[in-house]
Amino acid sequence: MSKSISLNEAAALLRGADDILILSHQFPDGDTLGCAAALCRGLQQLGKRAATACVDEPSAKYAFLFEGLACLSFEPKFVVTVDVATEELLGEPVREQYAGRVDLSIDHHGSHTPFAKAVFVDSTAAATAEVLYDLFKLLEVKLDLPMAEALFTALSTDTGCFKYPNTTPRTHRMAADLLELGVNAGEINHRMFDTKTRARMEMERMVLETLQFYLDGRCAMIYISREMIESTGAQEDDLDGLSSLPRQPEGVLAGVTIRQKKNGDFKLSLRTEPPIDAAKICGTFGGGGHANAAGATLSGTLEEIRSKVEQAVNQEFAHLG
Amino acid sequence: MSKSISLNEAAALLRGADDILILSHQFPDGDTLGCAAALCRGLQQLGKRAATACVDEPSAKYAFLFEGLACLSFEPKFVVTVDVATEELLGEPVREQYAGRVDLSIDHHGSHTPFAKAVFVDSTAAATAEVLYDLFKLLEVKLDLPMAEALFTALSTDTGCFKYPNTTPRTHRMAADLLELGVNAGEINHRMFDTKTRARMEMERMVLETLQFYLDGRCAMIYISREMIESTGAQEDDLDGLSSLPRQPEGVLAGVTIRQKKNGDFKLSLRTEPPIDAAKICGTFGGGGHANAAGATLSGTLEEIRSKVEQAVNQEFAHLG
Repeated sequence: MSKSISLNEAAALLRGADDILILSHQFPDGDTLGCAAALCRGLQQLGKRAATACVDEPSAKYAFLFEGLACLSFEPKFVVTVDVATEELLGEPVREQYAGRVDLSIDHHGSHTPFAKAVFVDSTAAATAEVLYDLFKLLEVKLDLPMAEALFTALSTDTGCFKYPNTTPRTHRMAADLLELGVNAGEINHRMFDTKTRARMEMERMVLETLQFYLDGRCAMIYISREMIESTGAQEDDLDGLSSLPRQPEGVLAGVTIRQKKNGDFKLSLRTEPPIDAAKICGTFGGGGHANAAGATLSGTLEEIRSKVEQAVNQEFAHLG
Repeated sequence: MSKSISLNEAAALLRGADDILILSHQFPDGDTLGCAAALCRGLQQLGKRAATACVDEPSAKYAFLFEGLACLSFEPKFVVTVDVATEELLGEPVREQYAGRVDLSIDHHGSHTPFAKAVFVDSTAAATAEVLYDLFKLLEVKLDLPMAEALFTALSTDTGCFKYPNTTPRTHRMAADLLELGVNAGEINHRMFDTKTRARMEMERMVLETLQFYLDGRCAMIYISREMIESTGAQEDDLDGLSSLPRQPEGVLAGVTIRQKKNGDFKLSLRTEPPIDAAKICGTFGGGGHANAAGATLSGTLEEIRSKVEQAVNQEFAHLG
């Protein structure tokens, strides 16, 4: 039912459409929001009625992307998703509302599971913004400053400010083009990467206090309790990226985050350096993931879990010699 | 005595020279070291004898830049500095040793104070690496992987991984070119930006414990004591960038770092958001700097200093309304 199409065909679909709704994924990030805002403005430039929607309220730092864009005030005749890898990621009730009604998906996730009538996925793109940038050229949309800022925000946030290995020459060239359009990248980057909520600052302090080293400093663990989350008032957004913290000390090959869940179980997040296989270690607890980032859920006391994880990591070290 | 020359003239000087020593500045960063390593390799490719030197031992994360490069084993006939803004920054005894003997300075600091016989400064370049990249084209040096990695390290570290406002389209285009030469940017960036010494991690934890807010959360202060530095064994390198921390909480317009000096005085570092003028505030204590980053030295008790700084910041707020 879902058909993979070319970017030219995607452009043709949008050219022929009107009253277009653009959907972002739940727990929205800079890429899904930046793309939605840019596409909405681009379609409006082409004389179309367009609006954006997301099941979750975007965090305040993204509000500037939507300045001047009105809420949905029409019955959508065409529905597009941007950066949404699976239908589930639309989140309820949006998923149910638009089930089977999504006309076009534009994405960059290699793991994209088709759910729209037509799909364009470019998994070589560091961000969906790179796909949109090509699409705008085909649509002959002229990038104005708000569109360029939205695309830059998307590109920069999805690559950790050009730090992650997904960054390619194409990413940097697109960033160069956007800067030439007048994007104040320094200010956007400061807002995206160097501004933290007080709850986040407080979480970092608390979590650093729990940092412990194991296995001659090759394994580091942090712990996030329900009490920390409740006392700081941290939102999900504030906890984002904390699990990269135990991998930062030099010499650490396996960085472990143990987070207490509401039901008392513990969520394990593991970040590793090659050749340590995070998915394999988490697999011993019934979890999974990627070679450098994986997770699992465990029951028991905190000390039991620390000890189990230490053993599993040690076993992998021993296995590798 | 110092002559400003064109990049073509700088290339001609290097083409005509041999037995070349390349000097980096004291407390060396990625730009001065990456440029020294890349230039040394480039000159060797042109069949010349070349070596690098720096008054301070580079931190371990930069060691890969110099792999396979031998130490100085010849009497230099031509001396070049890269990324060295003033002669003093060569550090003693290197400064004295080469006083009046530096043939060529290649730099990007707008504040460059000429000390070499010939000087090329491009203050529009985000890093001296951008200047070298142009220079290599003129010299017809073919960039190999170690040279490309050295230039990327220089570019990336001097722009905070393309995050700071000094990043331009030229910066991103150069990064794109270097990635195409096979630079493993993800790994270099991980080593430069996501790896911290244990002392640094411990400093961050301790410093976050001292975080206090003033003036309705618009001013935040941290404190770094001698005891923290001594108990963690933190080196100067580990303290680098800590002063950006109090500017991170949202709503903060003035981030203050108070650091105890060996003699018991306190060093004030102030980071501000526009329109708060950091230089003006620090000026009231006899210090100075830029509009967004300035410093001063104060005497007294910690509490006295906190109170004085709060008052000075408040006065600036009141003045701006």
